[in-house]
Amino acid sequence: MRIGHGFDLHRMELLTEMPGLELWLGGIKLEHDRGCVAHSDGDVLLHCIVDAITGALGMPDIGQLFPDNDPKWKGCTSDVFVTEACRLMREAGYEIGNMDCTIIAQRPKISPHKEAIRANLAKMLGADESVINVKAKTHEKVDSLGENRSIACHTVVLLNKV
Amino acid sequence: MRIGHGFDLHRMELLTEMPGLELWLGGIKLEHDRGCVAHSDGDVLLHCIVDAITGALGMPDIGQLFPDNDPKWKGCTSDVFVTEACRLMREAGYEIGNMDCTIIAQRPKISPHKEAIRANLAKMLGADESVINVKAKTHEKVDSLGENRSIACHTVVLLNKV
Amino acid sequence: MRIGHGFDLHRMELLTEMPGLELWLGGIKLEHDRGCVAHSDGDVLLHCIVDAITGALGMPDIGQLFPDNDPKWKGCTSDVFVTEACRLMREAGYEIGNMDCTIIAQRPKISPHKEAIRANLAKMLGADESVINVKAKTHEKVDSLGENRSIACHTVVLLNKV
Ligand SMILES: [Zn+2]
Ligand SMILES: [Zn+2]
Ligand SMILES: [Zn+2]
Repeated sequence: MRIGHGFDLHRMELLTEMPGLELWLGGIKLEHDRGCVAHSDGDVLLHCIVDAITGALGMPDIGQLFPDNDPKWKGCTSDVFVTEACRLMREAGYEIGNMDCTIIAQRPKISPHKEAIRANLAKMLGADESVINVKAKTHEKVDSLGENRSIACHTVVLLNKV
Repeated sequence: MRIGHGFDLHRMELLTEMPGLELWLGGIKLEHDRGCVAHSDGDVLLHCIVDAITGALGMPDIGQLFPDNDPKWKGCTSDVFVTEACRLMREAGYEIGNMDCTIIAQRPKISPHKEAIRANLAKMLGADESVINVKAKTHEKVDSLGENRSIACHTVVLLNKV
Repeated sequence: MRIGHGFDLHRMELLTEMPGLELWLGGIKLEHDRGCVAHSDGDVLLHCIVDAITGALGMPDIGQLFPDNDPKWKGCTSDVFVTEACRLMREAGYEIGNMDCTIIAQRPKISPHKEAIRANLAKMLGADESVINVKAKTHEKVDSLGENRSIACHTVVLLNKV
C-alpha cells in the first residue's frame, strides 16, 4: 500500500480582461466569469490527481512527465495525463484503494457539479465511484483563493498492490 | 483501509471590531483578542475532521451533511457534526486507524492547549488518544494566516474496516 | 499502519536586504538570491518531514521536540532533527512505508535538484529511494509563495509496523 499527495493551484482572470479563458474541473467545463491562466487547460483537479498518483508511485511529477515544450503532449487535455498516470500505475502493479480530493475556490459554487465531476473522475481512473471522493471549500474571501484570483486542490490517495 | 483529507479555514476578526466573536478549537474555547467569523461556532479543527472522515468514506462533505439553512443543525456546536460523522463511519463498518491534524495559526499560541484539545477529540471520536494527533504551526507572518486574519487546519485520517 | 501529514512554511528575504541568509532544502544548500528567515537553517522540507513522522506516531511536534531555547539543539542543522525523528520511529517499532513530499516555491527552480534531494532524504531516513518522493510546484505568482516571499512544503507518510 502506498500514499500520495497532490497540490495544484492556478490563477484565474476575468473573461472581460482575458477573453477565451476557460474553467475546467475534473474534465468538466464550468460556466463562470473567470477562467484559468495556464499552458494546458488549467484543470487543477486533474493535475493534482496526476501528482498524487505518480507521487505515490515515486515517479516523476506532472511537470516532468508531461513537459510544456514536448510536442507529444502539446494541446492535450488533462484527462490524457490522468489516463497516462493510471497506465503507469497499473504497469507498476497498483490500483486505487481510494482517493479524496478537496477543491478550494471562492466561486463558482462547486457543489452543483460535484456528482458529475466524481462520475467523470471514476470513469477516467477506471475506478468505482465509491472509492473516489470530491469535496469543495471556499477560502472565506481571504488571499488569492478567497478573492477569486486563484483556484486550488489537494488530493490524497492510497494505492493497493494488485 | 481508506484515506481522507480535510481542509478548513475561517476568517478571524478583532473582538474590538466584532464583539461577541469566539475562537473554538477542537471543542475548546480559547481566550484570544480575535474570534472566528462563521455561521457555526467556526471550529476549524472539528470541521476539517468531519471532512476528513466523511471524505475517507466517500460521503457528502460537511456543507452538504449539515447545511446552514437546515433547522435540524441550526445553532449546533460542531462536536454534534463530529459525533454524527463518527456514527456514519461506524454504520459503514469503519473505525479510526489514526488521525493527524495540523492547525495553522499565527496567534494564539496553541501548544498550551494541545493536550486538552487532543483529549477532547479522542473522547468525541470514541478513539484512544494514541491514535489522535494535533500539531500547530505559525504562518511566519505572511498572508492572511500569518497576519492573524484567518486560522486553518489540515487533517489526514486512515480508517480501518472493523 | 499509521498516516502522518506535515506542513511547514518559511519566509524568504533578499540577500541584498538580509545578507547571510541561506536556502536549505532536504539538507542541500541551493544557490538563490533569497534565503530563509528562521531560528534554525530554515529547511522547510526537513521540518515538515519531521512533523509528518512524529505526527504519524502521535508524538510531540518539531517545536516541542526541538525547542529553540534548548541548548541541546542550538545550532543543529535540521538533518539532526530528522535523524532523531527516525530513531523515535524505530524505537516505537515502525518503519517508513512510503513518503510523498510537495515543495511549493515560485523560485528557485527545484527540478534540477530533485534527485539530489531525494537521494539525500533516503540516506537521512535510512530508507530506499523508491519509497521517498519529492515533487515541486510553483504558486503561480500569487500570495507570499507566488511572490517569492515564502517557501512551503506538504508531506504525507505511511508508517508500517515492523
Ligand atoms: Zn495545474
Ligand atoms: Zn469551518
Ligand atoms: Zn520550519
